Amino acid sequence: MKRLSSACCAVAILLCGPSVRAEDNKPIDYSRQHQWVGELDRAQSPIDIVTKQAQPAGPNEPHGLDFRNTRRVLGRLQDQGHSVRFDTGADTIEAHFRGRYFRLVQLHFHLFSEHAIDGVHQPMEAHLVFKAQNGALAVVGVLFSQGDSNPAVQSILDGLPESGKTGKEQELDVRELLPENLAYFHYLGSLTTPPLTQNVEWYVLKQPVSASAAQLAVFRERYADNNRKLQPRNGRPLIESGD
Amino acid sequence: MKRLSSACCAVAILLCGPSVRAEDNKPIDYSRQHQWVGELDRAQSPIDIVTKQAQPAGPNEPHGLDFRNTRRVLGRLQDQGHSVRFDTGADTIEAHFRGRYFRLVQLHFHLFSEHAIDGVHQPMEAHLVFKAQNGALAVVGVLFSQGDSNPAVQSILDGLPESGKTGKEQELDVRELLPENLAYFHYLGSLTTPPLTQNVEWYVLKQPVSASAAQLAVFRERYADNNRKLQPRNGRPLIESGD
Repeated sequence: MKRLSSACCAVAILLCGPSVRAEDNKPIDYSRQHQWVGELDRAQSPIDIVTKQAQPAGPNEPHGLDFRNTRRVLGRLQDQGHSVRFDTGADTIEAHFRGRYFRLVQLHFHLFSEHAIDGVHQPMEAHLVFKAQNGALAVVGVLFSQGDSNPAVQSILDGLPESGKTGKEQELDVRELLPENLAYFHYLGSLTTPPLTQNVEWYVLKQPVSASAAQLAVFRERYADNNRKLQPRNGRPLIESGD
Repeated sequence: MKRLSSACCAVAILLCGPSVRAEDNKPIDYSRQHQWVGELDRAQSPIDIVTKQAQPAGPNEPHGLDFRNTRRVLGRLQDQGHSVRFDTGADTIEAHFRGRYFRLVQLHFHLFSEHAIDGVHQPMEAHLVFKAQNGALAVVGVLFSQGDSNPAVQSILDGLPESGKTGKEQELDVRELLPENLAYFHYLGSLTTPPLTQNVEWYVLKQPVSASAAQLAVFRERYADNNRKLQPRNGRPLIESGD
């Protein structure tokens, strides 16, 4: 079906006249700028993180994911049919990611994990979605392996609203969703659901956290197979923070 | 012609079947993810900077454009037909923009200015294009008013290669292209020429620098009207640094 999609673009371009692309390496004709088309879907998520292709973060800027106040926050769960989302309120978690300030907007879960590391998926992946003042998005991806029960996962399962509904306000201890070690793989990608907005800063944590087999089973019963297929990296840099 | 472009997209979508967009607010069907389409051309540059809509930069991160080593750099001019570009080499200018590390890759000029401030264009705008390790782009836009002669502009005019050619290696004093006061308007936009790549960090400096009438006339003779039309802001935040 990828091919059909490409064919559609080709049709659109034929209908619109020739598109102008940088790789033509010709002078740009400003009298035809109505024909300029942007690049679509070149920098999408998730990706397979090929660890041997990761380069160490450079020494010239802060590397850390610095959660200023990771703690219990008030919010509401919303069942979206394909997933469940926890929306935070005004009093949310603040963080500096590599020196920039972000606030936690929502978090949600995918089964199986959307990102793979060297081709290996995990049973689940949490996405903690942060937003900056300028509108930039940063998502912290936390991989879940099967193991001990997770108290924050349990409080989400206990509060799950009916399909399509919003739950009561409840507390969530976000610390339980993060591993002790915040080392990460970083790249620029996209939202993994429509509108697939690009240039999301991705921080996929190296160390997984655990959820029990029973917890994962409840999630899987409600929200199985809500993981987008792996997308091509298309030469994007893959950065690795220190441990 | 904008309308024609929209019509083409509509045709493409009709040919491909219904597209899935977030605003549908329905459960996402992962079995149809081959039909998902990204957002195109929603966050483009240049824009009209409506100053009364700018919000002050928040207190939680560094605001400054901190040029670590603004100075003379070696590089080569390339005439691209529609514009002239100065490409830097390995020993280039380093900068921290709001805490993140970038290196100057190239700079070029547009006549008239691409950005407008409260609807007003200037005779010329320089774009200093910086790149980060993760591939993120940041462009510093410097507006030129007509006034005193500018030594850096003169050294570019003296070195202008023939149409389509690359000039000899030459020095450029980048300090002369920057005003004393680095206060800026900031927003997330795009390259202004194809491939129109989005989520470029824009820093349009408030204080213009000057070039002489004679210098602007030479530029205009070679590279007139290479400014892209203003693009809709579409609700993007516009941030204003302190003075």
